[in-house]
Amino acid sequence: MSAGGKARMERTRRAILDAGEAVFLEHGFLGASMDQVAELAGVSKQTVYAHLQSKEALFLEVVGGMTGGAGDRLAEQVADPQVDRPLADFLLDFARQQLEIVLTPRLMRLRRLVIGEVGRFPDLGRMLHERGPGRSIARLARAFEAYRDAGHVAIPDPREAASHFNWLVMGGPVNAAMLLGDEAIPDKDDRLRHARECVRIFLAAYGAWDGSRLPPDPV
Amino acid sequence: MSAGGKARMERTRRAILDAGEAVFLEHGFLGASMDQVAELAGVSKQTVYAHLQSKEALFLEVVGGMTGGAGDRLAEQVADPQVDRPLADFLLDFARQQLEIVLTPRLMRLRRLVIGEVGRFPDLGRMLHERGPGRSIARLARAFEAYRDAGHVAIPDPREAASHFNWLVMGGPVNAAMLLGDEAIPDKDDRLRHARECVRIFLAAYGAWDGSRLPPDPV
Repeated sequence: MSAGGKARMERTRRAILDAGEAVFLEHGFLGASMDQVAELAGVSKQTVYAHLQSKEALFLEVVGGMTGGAGDRLAEQVADPQVDRPLADFLLDFARQQLEIVLTPRLMRLRRLVIGEVGRFPDLGRMLHERGPGRSIARLARAFEAYRDAGHVAIPDPREAASHFNWLVMGGPVNAAMLLGDEAIPDKDDRLRHARECVRIFLAAYGAWDGSRLPPDPV
Repeated sequence: MSAGGKARMERTRRAILDAGEAVFLEHGFLGASMDQVAELAGVSKQTVYAHLQSKEALFLEVVGGMTGGAGDRLAEQVADPQVDRPLADFLLDFARQQLEIVLTPRLMRLRRLVIGEVGRFPDLGRMLHERGPGRSIARLARAFEAYRDAGHVAIPDPREAASHFNWLVMGGPVNAAMLLGDEAIPDKDDRLRHARECVRIFLAAYGAWDGSRLPPDPV
Protein backbone atom coordinates (compact mmCIF):
# COMPACT_ATOMS: atom_id res chain seq x y z
CA MET A 1 0.00 0.00 0.00
CA SER A 2 1.21 3.56 -0.75
CA ALA A 3 2.17 5.90 2.08
CA GLY A 4 -0.89 8.03 1.27
CA GLY A 5 -3.12 4.98 1.38
CA LYS A 6 -1.71 3.99 4.74
CA ALA A 7 -2.22 7.46 6.20
CA ARG A 8 -5.81 7.48 4.88
CA MET A 9 -6.45 4.06 6.47
CA GLU A 10 -5.07 5.36 9.75
CA ARG A 11 -7.28 8.46 9.63
CA THR A 12 -10.34 6.36 8.91
CA ARG A 13 -9.55 4.00 11.77
CA ARG A 14 -9.07 6.99 14.12
CA ALA A 15 -12.43 8.44 13.02
CA ILE A 16 -14.14 5.10 13.68
CA LEU A 17 -12.57 4.80 17.15
CA ASP A 18 -13.55 8.37 18.05
CA ALA A 19 -17.10 7.74 16.85
CA GLY A 20 -17.15 4.47 18.78
CA GLU A 21 -16.10 6.27 21.95
CA ALA A 22 -18.86 8.84 21.59
CA VAL A 23 -21.54 6.26 20.79
CA PHE A 24 -20.58 3.81 23.56
CA LEU A 25 -20.30 6.55 26.20
CA GLU A 26 -23.73 7.83 25.18
CA HIS A 27 -25.64 4.58 24.68
CA GLY A 28 -23.71 1.85 26.48
CA PHE A 29 -22.57 -1.38 24.85
CA LEU A 30 -25.97 -2.97 24.24
CA GLY A 31 -27.61 0.32 23.24
CA ALA A 32 -24.92 1.20 20.69
CA SER A 33 -25.18 0.15 17.06
CA MET A 34 -22.56 -0.05 14.35
CA ASP A 35 -24.92 2.03 12.17
CA GLN A 36 -24.60 4.92 14.62
CA VAL A 37 -20.82 4.54 14.64
CA ALA A 38 -20.65 4.52 10.84
CA GLU A 39 -22.86 7.59 10.57
CA LEU A 40 -20.90 9.57 13.14
CA ALA A 41 -17.56 8.58 11.58
CA GLY A 42 -18.89 9.53 8.13
CA VAL A 43 -18.09 6.14 6.60
CA SER A 44 -20.10 3.15 5.43
CA LYS A 45 -20.92 0.29 7.74
CA GLN A 46 -18.79 -1.99 5.56
CA THR A 47 -15.82 0.30 6.19
CA VAL A 48 -16.43 0.09 9.94
CA TYR A 49 -16.43 -3.70 9.76
CA ALA A 50 -13.34 -3.73 7.55
CA HIS A 51 -11.42 -2.01 10.38
CA LEU A 52 -13.06 -3.51 13.47
CA GLN A 53 -14.60 -6.92 12.94
CA SER A 54 -17.45 -6.67 15.44
CA LYS A 55 -19.10 -4.39 17.98
CA GLU A 56 -17.20 -6.34 20.67
CA ALA A 57 -13.86 -5.71 18.94
CA LEU A 58 -14.61 -1.99 18.60
CA PHE A 59 -15.67 -1.81 22.26
CA LEU A 60 -12.47 -3.51 23.45
CA GLU A 61 -10.34 -1.21 21.33
CA VAL A 62 -12.12 1.98 22.45
CA VAL A 63 -12.04 1.14 26.17
CA GLY A 64 -8.45 -0.10 25.99
CA GLY A 65 -7.31 3.14 24.40
CA MET A 66 -9.13 5.29 26.95
CA THR A 67 -7.86 3.47 30.06
CA GLY A 68 -4.19 3.80 29.18
CA GLY A 69 -4.21 7.57 28.74
CA ALA A 70 -5.02 8.71 32.27
CA GLY A 71 -2.30 6.60 33.88
CA ASP A 72 0.22 7.92 31.37
CA ARG A 73 -0.70 11.52 32.16
CA LEU A 74 -0.36 10.98 35.91
CA ALA A 75 3.06 9.35 35.42
CA GLU A 76 4.21 12.30 33.29
CA GLN A 77 2.89 15.06 35.52
CA VAL A 78 4.00 13.91 38.96
CA ALA A 79 7.75 13.57 39.29
CA ASP A 80 9.05 10.43 40.96
CA PRO A 81 9.81 11.24 44.57
CA GLN A 82 13.18 12.40 45.69
CA VAL A 83 13.48 11.58 49.32
CA ASP A 84 14.99 14.93 50.25
CA ARG A 85 11.67 16.50 49.26
CA PRO A 86 9.18 16.33 52.17
CA LEU A 87 6.80 13.39 51.81
CA ALA A 88 3.91 15.79 52.48
CA ASP A 89 4.77 17.76 49.33
CA PHE A 90 4.97 14.65 47.17
CA LEU A 91 1.67 13.30 48.51
CA LEU A 92 -0.19 16.56 48.10
CA ASP A 93 1.08 16.87 44.56
CA PHE A 94 0.15 13.29 43.78
CA ALA A 95 -3.35 13.60 45.26
CA ARG A 96 -4.10 16.87 43.48
CA GLN A 97 -2.94 15.60 40.10
CA GLN A 98 -4.78 12.32 40.47
CA LEU A 99 -8.03 14.05 41.43
CA GLU A 100 -7.70 16.43 38.50
CA ILE A 101 -6.80 13.80 35.90
CA VAL A 102 -9.26 11.10 36.91
CA LEU A 103 -12.32 13.18 37.81
CA THR A 104 -13.35 14.18 34.31
CA PRO A 105 -16.80 13.53 32.83
CA ARG A 106 -15.19 11.47 30.06
CA LEU A 107 -13.30 9.11 32.37
CA MET A 108 -16.21 8.85 34.81
CA ARG A 109 -18.51 7.84 31.93
CA LEU A 110 -15.96 5.29 30.79
CA ARG A 111 -15.78 3.91 34.31
CA ARG A 112 -19.58 3.60 34.59
CA LEU A 113 -19.67 1.88 31.22
CA VAL A 114 -16.96 -0.64 32.14
CA ILE A 115 -18.52 -1.36 35.55
CA GLY A 116 -21.93 -1.90 33.96
CA GLU A 117 -20.37 -4.38 31.52
CA VAL A 118 -18.08 -6.29 33.92
CA GLY A 119 -20.32 -9.36 33.66
CA ARG A 120 -20.01 -9.45 29.86
CA PHE A 121 -16.43 -8.12 29.57
CA PRO A 122 -14.50 -9.05 32.73
CA ASP A 123 -11.17 -8.35 31.03
CA LEU A 124 -12.08 -4.69 30.59
CA GLY A 125 -12.74 -4.31 34.31
CA ARG A 126 -9.39 -5.92 35.09
CA MET A 127 -7.65 -3.68 32.60
CA LEU A 128 -9.22 -0.50 34.01
CA HIS A 129 -8.31 -1.59 37.53
CA GLU A 130 -4.73 -2.33 36.55
CA ARG A 131 -4.15 0.83 34.55
CA GLY A 132 -6.09 3.04 36.96
CA PRO A 133 -5.93 2.46 40.73
CA GLY A 134 -3.46 -0.44 40.37
CA ARG A 135 -0.89 1.76 38.70
CA SER A 136 -1.35 4.62 41.18
CA ILE A 137 -1.01 2.28 44.14
CA ALA A 138 2.13 0.67 42.73
CA ARG A 139 3.66 4.10 42.20
CA LEU A 140 2.79 5.25 45.74
CA ALA A 141 4.17 2.00 47.16
CA ARG A 142 7.52 2.58 45.45
CA ALA A 143 7.61 6.10 46.86
CA PHE A 144 6.84 4.88 50.39
CA GLU A 145 9.62 2.32 50.13
CA ALA A 146 12.08 5.01 49.14
CA TYR A 147 11.02 7.31 52.00
CA ARG A 148 11.08 4.43 54.43
CA ASP A 149 14.51 3.26 53.33
CA ALA A 150 15.75 6.82 53.83
CA GLY A 151 14.39 6.71 57.38
CA HIS A 152 11.76 9.43 56.88
CA VAL A 153 8.64 7.48 57.63
CA ALA A 154 7.49 4.36 59.47
CA ILE A 155 5.52 2.32 56.93
CA PRO A 156 5.76 -1.41 57.60
CA ASP A 157 3.71 -2.41 54.52
CA PRO A 158 4.18 0.14 51.70
CA ARG A 159 1.64 -1.53 49.40
CA GLU A 160 -1.10 -1.57 51.99
CA ALA A 161 -0.34 2.01 52.98
CA ALA A 162 -0.43 3.01 49.31
CA SER A 163 -3.85 1.44 48.90
CA HIS A 164 -5.13 3.28 51.98
CA PHE A 165 -3.86 6.62 50.72
CA ASN A 166 -5.23 6.01 47.25
CA TRP A 167 -8.74 5.21 48.46
CA LEU A 168 -8.76 7.88 51.13
CA VAL A 169 -8.20 10.35 48.29
CA MET A 170 -10.24 8.78 45.48
CA GLY A 171 -12.93 6.69 47.22
CA GLY A 172 -15.41 9.41 48.06
CA PRO A 173 -15.16 11.56 44.90
CA VAL A 174 -15.11 8.61 42.49
CA ASN A 175 -18.05 6.88 44.13
CA ALA A 176 -20.07 10.08 44.28
CA ALA A 177 -19.41 10.58 40.56
CA MET A 178 -20.35 6.96 39.82
CA LEU A 179 -23.75 7.24 41.50
CA LEU A 180 -24.60 10.94 41.31
CA GLY A 181 -23.29 11.73 37.85
CA ASP A 182 -20.91 14.35 36.58
CA GLU A 183 -22.34 17.20 38.68
CA ALA A 184 -20.90 15.46 41.73
CA ILE A 185 -17.34 16.00 40.45
CA PRO A 186 -15.74 18.41 42.97
CA ASP A 187 -14.35 21.75 41.80
CA LYS A 188 -10.74 22.83 42.13
CA ASP A 189 -11.05 24.36 45.62
CA ASP A 190 -12.85 21.32 46.98
CA ARG A 191 -10.29 18.99 45.43
CA LEU A 192 -7.43 20.91 47.07
CA ARG A 193 -9.13 20.99 50.47
CA HIS A 194 -9.85 17.28 50.23
CA ALA A 195 -6.29 16.45 49.12
CA ARG A 196 -4.79 18.42 52.04
CA GLU A 197 -7.00 16.71 54.59
CA CYS A 198 -6.13 13.27 53.17
CA VAL A 199 -2.41 14.02 53.40
CA ARG A 200 -2.87 15.18 56.99
CA ILE A 201 -4.76 12.00 57.96
CA PHE A 202 -2.27 9.74 56.25
CA LEU A 203 0.83 11.34 57.74
CA ALA A 204 -0.71 11.41 61.21
CA ALA A 205 -1.35 7.67 60.96
CA TYR A 206 2.11 6.82 59.66
CA GLY A 207 4.05 8.79 62.19
CA ALA A 208 5.45 11.41 59.87
CA TRP A 209 3.24 14.33 60.77
CA ASP A 210 4.46 16.97 63.19
CA GLY A 211 1.17 18.84 63.14
CA SER A 212 2.41 21.86 61.26
CA ARG A 213 4.27 21.21 58.06
CA LEU A 214 1.71 20.78 55.28
CA PRO A 215 3.02 22.95 52.46
CA PRO A 216 1.24 26.25 51.83
CA ASP A 217 -1.45 26.39 49.15
CA PRO A 218 0.07 26.66 45.69
CA VAL A 219 -0.52 30.00 44.06
CA MET B 1 -61.37 -8.38 46.92
CA SER B 2 -61.39 -11.33 49.34
CA ALA B 3 -58.54 -11.76 51.82
CA GLY B 4 -57.44 -14.86 49.89
CA GLY B 5 -57.48 -12.93 46.63
CA LYS B 6 -55.39 -10.18 48.17
CA ALA B 7 -52.83 -12.62 49.54
CA ARG B 8 -52.63 -14.32 46.13
CA MET B 9 -52.10 -10.94 44.41
CA GLU B 10 -49.34 -10.16 46.90
CA ARG B 11 -47.64 -13.52 46.27
CA THR B 12 -47.79 -13.00 42.52
CA ARG B 13 -46.34 -9.51 42.85
CA ARG B 14 -43.53 -10.86 45.06
CA ALA B 15 -42.77 -13.61 42.50
CA ILE B 16 -42.58 -11.01 39.71
CA LEU B 17 -40.25 -8.76 41.73
CA ASP B 18 -37.99 -11.71 42.61
CA ALA B 19 -37.91 -12.78 38.97
CA GLY B 20 -37.23 -9.19 37.93
CA GLU B 21 -34.29 -8.99 40.33
CA ALA B 22 -32.77 -12.19 38.95
CA VAL B 23 -33.27 -11.18 35.31
CA PHE B 24 -31.97 -7.61 35.71
CA LEU B 25 -28.91 -8.69 37.72
CA GLU B 26 -28.12 -11.28 35.05
CA HIS B 27 -28.85 -9.34 31.86
CA GLY B 28 -28.84 -5.65 32.77
CA PHE B 29 -31.69 -3.28 32.02
CA LEU B 30 -31.44 -3.23 28.23
CA GLY B 31 -30.69 -6.96 27.99
CA ALA B 32 -33.65 -7.99 30.16
CA SER B 33 -37.06 -8.77 28.68
CA MET B 34 -40.47 -8.97 30.29
CA ASP B 35 -40.82 -12.41 28.65
CA GLN B 36 -37.92 -13.69 30.71
CA VAL B 37 -39.42 -12.17 33.86
CA ALA B 38 -42.82 -13.76 33.18
CA GLU B 39 -41.27 -17.16 32.50
CA LEU B 40 -39.13 -17.12 35.63
CA ALA B 41 -42.06 -15.94 37.77
CA GLY B 42 -44.27 -18.65 36.28
CA VAL B 43 -46.98 -16.20 35.17
CA SER B 44 -48.18 -14.80 31.87
CA LYS B 45 -46.74 -11.62 30.41
CA GLN B 46 -50.17 -9.99 30.81
CA THR B 47 -49.99 -10.74 34.54
CA VAL B 48 -46.58 -9.11 34.76
CA TYR B 49 -47.91 -5.98 33.06
CA ALA B 50 -51.02 -5.96 35.27
CA HIS B 51 -48.71 -5.59 38.30
CA LEU B 52 -45.87 -3.48 36.90
CA GLN B 53 -46.82 -1.30 33.95
CA SER B 54 -43.50 -1.30 32.13
CA LYS B 55 -39.95 -2.65 32.23
CA GLU B 56 -38.92 0.75 33.64
CA ALA B 57 -41.48 0.51 36.45
CA LEU B 58 -40.33 -3.00 37.33
CA PHE B 59 -36.69 -1.90 37.30
CA LEU B 60 -37.37 1.05 39.62
CA GLU B 61 -39.30 -1.18 42.01
CA VAL B 62 -36.66 -3.93 42.07
CA VAL B 63 -33.72 -1.58 42.59
CA GLY B 64 -35.61 0.50 45.16
CA GLY B 65 -36.40 -2.59 47.21
CA MET B 66 -32.82 -3.85 47.11
CA THR B 67 -31.16 -0.56 48.12
CA GLY B 68 -33.24 -0.10 51.25
CA GLY B 69 -32.46 -3.49 52.75
CA ALA B 70 -28.71 -3.16 53.35
CA GLY B 71 -29.01 0.16 55.17
CA ASP B 72 -31.74 -1.28 57.37
CA ARG B 73 -29.58 -4.27 58.30
CA LEU B 74 -26.61 -2.07 59.20
CA ALA B 75 -28.84 0.12 61.39
CA GLU B 76 -30.23 -2.94 63.15
CA GLN B 77 -26.94 -4.72 63.71
CA VAL B 78 -24.71 -1.92 64.96
CA ALA B 79 -25.97 -0.34 68.16
CA ASP B 80 -25.99 3.45 68.30
CA PRO B 81 -22.86 4.57 70.13
CA GLN B 82 -22.83 5.11 73.82
CA VAL B 83 -20.03 7.47 74.57
CA ASP B 84 -18.77 5.49 77.55
CA ARG B 85 -17.88 2.73 75.10
CA PRO B 86 -14.45 3.37 73.50
CA LEU B 87 -14.76 4.97 70.08
CA ALA B 88 -12.34 2.36 68.75
CA ASP B 89 -14.80 -0.40 69.63
CA PHE B 90 -17.71 1.34 67.97
CA LEU B 91 -15.70 2.07 64.82
CA LEU B 92 -14.35 -1.45 64.52
CA ASP B 93 -17.82 -2.87 64.96
CA PHE B 94 -19.25 -0.46 62.41
CA ALA B 95 -16.53 -1.16 59.84
CA ARG B 96 -16.78 -4.93 60.19
CA GLN B 97 -20.56 -4.98 59.89
CA GLN B 98 -20.56 -2.61 56.95
CA LEU B 99 -17.96 -4.64 55.08
CA GLU B 100 -19.90 -7.83 55.73
CA ILE B 101 -23.32 -6.47 54.81
CA VAL B 102 -22.33 -4.48 51.72
CA LEU B 103 -19.74 -6.79 50.15
CA THR B 104 -22.08 -9.49 48.89
CA PRO B 105 -22.27 -10.64 45.27
CA ARG B 106 -25.95 -9.61 45.16
CA LEU B 107 -25.37 -6.02 46.31
CA MET B 108 -22.23 -5.65 44.21
CA ARG B 109 -24.18 -6.76 41.12
CA LEU B 110 -26.92 -4.29 41.98
CA ARG B 111 -24.34 -1.54 42.34
CA ARG B 112 -22.77 -2.34 38.95
CA LEU B 113 -26.20 -2.37 37.38
CA VAL B 114 -27.20 1.01 38.85
CA ILE B 115 -23.85 2.62 37.94
CA GLY B 116 -24.13 1.32 34.38
CA GLU B 117 -27.62 2.85 34.11
CA VAL B 118 -26.98 6.22 35.82
CA GLY B 119 -27.31 8.00 32.48
CA ARG B 120 -30.75 6.51 31.86
CA PHE B 121 -31.96 6.38 35.49
CA PRO B 122 -30.21 9.14 37.48
CA ASP B 123 -32.76 8.84 40.30
CA LEU B 124 -31.65 5.27 41.00
CA GLY B 125 -28.03 6.36 41.42
CA ARG B 126 -29.11 9.10 43.83
CA MET B 127 -31.27 6.64 45.76
CA LEU B 128 -28.46 4.10 46.07
CA HIS B 129 -26.06 6.83 47.19
CA GLU B 130 -28.51 8.14 49.77
CA ARG B 131 -29.49 4.76 51.19
CA GLY B 132 -25.98 3.34 51.01
CA PRO B 133 -22.93 5.53 51.74
CA GLY B 134 -25.09 8.58 52.55
CA ARG B 135 -26.83 6.77 55.37
CA SER B 136 -23.62 5.29 56.77
CA ILE B 137 -21.89 8.66 56.71
CA ALA B 138 -24.81 10.38 58.45
CA ARG B 139 -24.79 7.71 61.14
CA LEU B 140 -21.03 8.02 61.69
CA ALA B 141 -21.30 11.82 61.81
CA ARG B 142 -23.90 11.61 64.60
CA ALA B 143 -21.61 9.26 66.51
CA PHE B 144 -18.61 11.58 66.11
CA GLU B 145 -20.69 14.51 67.36
CA ALA B 146 -21.67 12.55 70.45
CA TYR B 147 -18.07 11.50 71.17
CA ARG B 148 -16.83 15.02 70.53
CA ASP B 149 -19.46 16.60 72.77
CA ALA B 150 -18.41 14.18 75.50
CA GLY B 151 -14.81 15.38 75.09
CA HIS B 152 -13.42 12.05 73.85
CA VAL B 153 -12.18 13.09 70.46
CA ALA B 154 -11.10 16.17 68.51
CA ILE B 155 -13.20 16.19 65.35
CA PRO B 156 -13.85 19.72 64.08
CA ASP B 157 -16.08 18.61 61.16
CA PRO B 158 -17.92 15.37 62.03
CA ARG B 159 -19.48 15.00 58.58
CA GLU B 160 -16.20 15.32 56.75
CA ALA B 161 -14.51 12.94 59.20
CA ALA B 162 -17.38 10.48 58.71
CA SER B 163 -16.93 10.58 54.96
CA HIS B 164 -13.18 9.96 55.35
CA PHE B 165 -13.74 6.97 57.61
CA ASN B 166 -16.43 5.55 55.36
CA TRP B 167 -14.27 5.67 52.22
CA LEU B 168 -11.13 4.57 53.98
CA VAL B 169 -13.06 1.42 54.89
CA MET B 170 -15.21 0.90 51.80
CA GLY B 171 -13.32 2.59 48.95
CA GLY B 172 -10.79 -0.12 48.16
CA PRO B 173 -12.97 -3.22 48.57
CA VAL B 174 -16.02 -1.76 46.79
CA ASN B 175 -14.01 -0.49 43.86
CA ALA B 176 -12.13 -3.75 43.51
CA ALA B 177 -15.45 -5.60 43.48
CA MET B 178 -16.87 -3.15 40.91
CA LEU B 179 -14.03 -3.70 38.44
CA LEU B 180 -12.73 -7.17 39.26
CA GLY B 181 -16.00 -8.94 39.97
CA ASP B 182 -17.21 -10.98 42.90
CA GLU B 183 -13.95 -12.93 43.34
CA ALA B 184 -12.37 -9.69 44.54
CA ILE B 185 -14.66 -9.60 47.59
CA PRO B 186 -12.34 -10.05 50.61
CA ASP B 187 -12.87 -12.95 53.00
CA LYS B 188 -13.61 -12.61 56.69
CA ASP B 189 -9.99 -12.49 57.88
CA ASP B 190 -9.03 -9.88 55.29
CA ARG B 191 -12.08 -7.80 56.17
CA LEU B 192 -11.16 -7.82 59.86
CA ARG B 193 -7.52 -6.93 59.19
CA HIS B 194 -8.59 -4.11 56.90
CA ALA B 195 -11.17 -2.81 59.39
CA ARG B 196 -8.60 -2.74 62.20
CA GLU B 197 -6.05 -0.87 60.13
CA CYS B 198 -8.68 1.70 59.06
CA VAL B 199 -9.66 2.31 62.69
CA ARG B 200 -6.00 2.75 63.61
CA ILE B 201 -5.41 5.28 60.82
CA PHE B 202 -8.55 7.21 61.62
CA LEU B 203 -7.94 7.47 65.35
CA ALA B 204 -4.31 8.44 64.82
CA ALA B 205 -5.43 11.29 62.58
CA TYR B 206 -8.14 12.53 64.93
CA GLY B 207 -6.06 12.52 68.04
CA ALA B 208 -7.84 9.76 69.88
CA TRP B 209 -5.35 6.98 69.42
CA ASP B 210 -2.91 6.14 72.18
CA GLY B 211 -1.11 3.52 70.11
CA SER B 212 -2.28 0.54 72.08
CA ARG B 213 -5.97 0.26 72.69
CA LEU B 214 -7.55 -1.37 69.64
CA PRO B 215 -9.84 -4.03 71.09
CA PRO B 216 -8.69 -7.65 70.82
CA ASP B 217 -9.95 -9.75 67.91
CA PRO B 218 -13.44 -11.02 68.55
CA VAL B 219 -13.58 -14.77 69.06
